Amino acid sequence: MSRPWVLDYDTENCTIGAALAIVGEKWTFLVLREAFNGVRRFDDIRRRIAAPRQVLSDRLARLVAQDLLRKVPYREPGQRSRSEYRLTDKGLALFPLIVALLQWGNTYAVSPAGPVVELRHRGCGTQVRLQLRCADGHQVDSARDVMPVPGPGARVIA
Amino acid sequence: MSRPWVLDYDTENCTIGAALAIVGEKWTFLVLREAFNGVRRFDDIRRRIAAPRQVLSDRLARLVAQDLLRKVPYREPGQRSRSEYRLTDKGLALFPLIVALLQWGNTYAVSPAGPVVELRHRGCGTQVRLQLRCADGHQVDSARDVMPVPGPGARVIA
Repeated sequence: MSRPWVLDYDTENCTIGAALAIVGEKWTFLVLREAFNGVRRFDDIRRRIAAPRQVLSDRLARLVAQDLLRKVPYREPGQRSRSEYRLTDKGLALFPLIVALLQWGNTYAVSPAGPVVELRHRGCGTQVRLQLRCADGHQVDSARDVMPVPGPGARVIA
Repeated sequence: MSRPWVLDYDTENCTIGAALAIVGEKWTFLVLREAFNGVRRFDDIRRRIAAPRQVLSDRLARLVAQDLLRKVPYREPGQRSRSEYRLTDKGLALFPLIVALLQWGNTYAVSPAGPVVELRHRGCGTQVRLQLRCADGHQVDSARDVMPVPGPGARVIA
């Protein structure tokens, strides 16, 4: 095959790399999974993802600092005030990433019993899936039909 | 808000968790990014992702063991035979995950110069994007319009 054009370009400002610097870690993805499931309280999240307490504290603090989650106070009767963790708009925008993990996992890492969770459209109740489409409206079925090209921020290696 | 139904269910067989056990790590995603860019040789990958040699060897071996990459021999004139790493079908199926990272990064983690890479449809040259759609064909614009429901593999906590 021919030499990939990307070899002539710098990776330092790659936005996949930048995105991974924010969310590229198992516990962080699992915290986000819980947030999209509506699980917002420390003890509930901790029990469901089975993270050590300090690891979860650290990941939640990072997600708040990165503006992916925000803290909202709540108080149960007779208890002290605590915080719930809710998705910001920047966090909500990660939904396709979670759906992509779910779809791939439901194909290649599923138990014989089948998927644990399915996603349904609130409007009509039918199953929600990710699709790749081009601006002309064609459905794109394979990575082989997609061509990466240099964007405006691409920098040729000096 | 009401108590999320997921709190009554086990997370042990969650396919997001299972998917992350395979790919949930920054170096692994970066190796996959390179594979989708057509960068297949150890030294090229290493230079582009700036991984320590041993870390990259380890991640490549895991990706081969998991059947996401396969090794294909090649030989440059006058040199010993080496291996290229190519995506399997199981690996190619991770493309939406990489596109989801790219799209989010291009919105929330991009430098002022703009995206480094853009994705174009080979057929028509227009930009490729991920969309969420339901089985009835409605475009789903927000995570708030999606409802997670228990799938066939869901297990209520005893």
